[in-house]
Amino acid sequence: MKTSGPIEPIADGGVTSAAGFRAGATSAGMKDGTSRLDLAVVVADHPCVAHAVYTQCAVVAAPIVVSRERLADGQAQAIVLNSGNANACNGEEGLAAARLMADVTAEHLGIDPGLMLVASTGVIGLPFPTDRVVQSAPSLAPRSDGGHDAALAIMTTDLVPKEAAVATEIGGTRVVVGGMAKGSGMIHPNMATMLSVVTTDARLDPAVAQAALGEAVAKSFNQVTVDRDTSTNDMLALLASGDAGGPEIRPDTEEARRFTEALETVCISLARKIARDGEGATRLIEVTVTGAISDEDARRAARGIVASNLVKAAIYGRDPNWGRIVSAVGNSGASIDQDIIDVAIGGHQVMSRGASADFDAEAVAEAMSPPEVYIAVDLHRGPGSGMAWGCDLTEGYVKINAEYTT
Amino acid sequence: MKTSGPIEPIADGGVTSAAGFRAGATSAGMKDGTSRLDLAVVVADHPCVAHAVYTQCAVVAAPIVVSRERLADGQAQAIVLNSGNANACNGEEGLAAARLMADVTAEHLGIDPGLMLVASTGVIGLPFPTDRVVQSAPSLAPRSDGGHDAALAIMTTDLVPKEAAVATEIGGTRVVVGGMAKGSGMIHPNMATMLSVVTTDARLDPAVAQAALGEAVAKSFNQVTVDRDTSTNDMLALLASGDAGGPEIRPDTEEARRFTEALETVCISLARKIARDGEGATRLIEVTVTGAISDEDARRAARGIVASNLVKAAIYGRDPNWGRIVSAVGNSGASIDQDIIDVAIGGHQVMSRGASADFDAEAVAEAMSPPEVYIAVDLHRGPGSGMAWGCDLTEGYVKINAEYTT
Repeated sequence: MKTSGPIEPIADGGVTSAAGFRAGATSAGMKDGTSRLDLAVVVADHPCVAHAVYTQCAVVAAPIVVSRERLADGQAQAIVLNSGNANACNGEEGLAAARLMADVTAEHLGIDPGLMLVASTGVIGLPFPTDRVVQSAPSLAPRSDGGHDAALAIMTTDLVPKEAAVATEIGGTRVVVGGMAKGSGMIHPNMATMLSVVTTDARLDPAVAQAALGEAVAKSFNQVTVDRDTSTNDMLALLASGDAGGPEIRPDTEEARRFTEALETVCISLARKIARDGEGATRLIEVTVTGAISDEDARRAARGIVASNLVKAAIYGRDPNWGRIVSAVGNSGASIDQDIIDVAIGGHQVMSRGASADFDAEAVAEAMSPPEVYIAVDLHRGPGSGMAWGCDLTEGYVKINAEYTT
Repeated sequence: MKTSGPIEPIADGGVTSAAGFRAGATSAGMKDGTSRLDLAVVVADHPCVAHAVYTQCAVVAAPIVVSRERLADGQAQAIVLNSGNANACNGEEGLAAARLMADVTAEHLGIDPGLMLVASTGVIGLPFPTDRVVQSAPSLAPRSDGGHDAALAIMTTDLVPKEAAVATEIGGTRVVVGGMAKGSGMIHPNMATMLSVVTTDARLDPAVAQAALGEAVAKSFNQVTVDRDTSTNDMLALLASGDAGGPEIRPDTEEARRFTEALETVCISLARKIARDGEGATRLIEVTVTGAISDEDARRAARGIVASNLVKAAIYGRDPNWGRIVSAVGNSGASIDQDIIDVAIGGHQVMSRGASADFDAEAVAEAMSPPEVYIAVDLHRGPGSGMAWGCDLTEGYVKINAEYTT
């Protein structure tokens, strides 16, 4: 019995591609009263099975606390998000502001405040302009084609909005997964940085929502967002409306695996877009590690490479400095035997069994020139594989972060 | 009974300040045949109690392997060092080269090759020019005032040599501790980067050498060199000649504690010089964390702050962005309560009990302008304290590391 078709991208798809979701955005003037879109909502027609993952940072922003509370029962119907102010390190006032932001928006949309999540991104420690949210929330007019506006409204130093959606058939039912994300695009976002909302019309058992999100995040956002460096505000929420119909997707089934793959595809697409839009970045770096003792170890090694300032600067300078790559692997904590490692850059082998390969430095520099640079490492230790994404380190990154004003 | 005097710095002191040590340097043309000093030796008049700490990187250079072998018995008499080539990732040939480098130098100096350590720094993965070392080792002419030349010879992208020495009285005996170091000055040296040799004329029980070095490194080099990012070649060797005379310093005594303090003073001085000479750096960042649940936790938090690209870029831009500081603390793994943290920059309180303090942004920016910038964090959780040192992140760093040629 064929239960699944291919996973097909939806052109211009986003957080409202799945059935049962609307989104809207408005300008609340969160930061210095500017007129750009900075307040957004994503809302379902009815309560959804929902799950979220949050920052690992021990300092957490008020909206994280409030969203955790309201999602404790595994149900949500909407999320309101703002850019321009992280509402982090604002004490009791910040918590009250996050609660009010959720409550006012829920009232306007006519839904149970207990089903309203909240997320913020922007500068840490600035007093939150609650009055602006209260004034502007009633002008949020969610529409079934409002996903793009919402993606625009959550941008901070992002140059482009980040959206993705796919459709696939699961157990005879056509299911859509779509989402949006924002990230200043740093490899180590810790500036109140990464927000994402992913929606689906699949009918999910709550356990499937949780397990699939965990797996998808491990292979996507966590591979641009090293856990130990997540921001005070990082959050990814999944809402499943079930409006696609069909039987509920149960844990540990072929259907659950298929849904996880579709979710992974969307999350990886969004994660890559975050890396590509890295602050000051000129190139996306995609690292593939194979031959690790486990998938987790492979991901650890891949993360170590894209996290290295020296590797990132070498990519910027188109310098085939493979010593920096293998040194990053050595520091990643992955289990290795240094005498059997192979490294390739853009398809050119530069390290062979732990020592320099005979390579054409000019050709490798050439392979480091396109907008996407590929690094492949084979540890020759086991069956584990994994990927990570990052960007080069440029003078532009330093300028943006030296001049970014509190 | 007064057993100890103050710890006094020795002006222009270095690795040959302690009695019984000589050093010399020569030009071997290790890198493209340049004529700068690039081969150095530090040698004692007789076998010494010795101990070393090495890189935590799982990829280790050949000289690390050889030095570990030869120091297994806790005895050494000399160390030969080169810059310009890391002799890392060179397979069996690299190991043979490191052994030959030690053996040839030992023969020239007339000492037991088993007492000769070896260290290299420079680019990873370039074939090691063993013949140049073999030719040049005989021109190494160690002198009791040769420490400065040796410090020059181990430099790579360092702008200045790094030396320090102190004298103090321990149990009625005047003891000298002195050393040299090199580091490209990155907060996370992983470019085959950090080498240091420290000598003393104290008469040390081997257990004291080991314990004192561990403690001193934890409070100094490990606070600029986050372990997980050490290079393939990092090494710090301590040689104790005993030529100061007096009774042997035994473990767990007041004398051992006093020696540890003197060693710490030298190591912190060298570590600060590494941070200050950071690639592209315009400022030294000194972070002091108090109120942690332990000294180790305080050091962890302090390291997290100086390791943050965002904090480093903010210092460069003189931006009093304390949100980045507290976010780095939150990601450090240190035990915190976010609602009671205080942060000060240059003596100005910017965060008070977890929220923004009322501060003059102009005055704080002013306090971030001198060559040394001080960040103080009080976690208000316990008696632990610790320090870390780093440098700002500048366009210059990116330029150096993008253009550094393999």
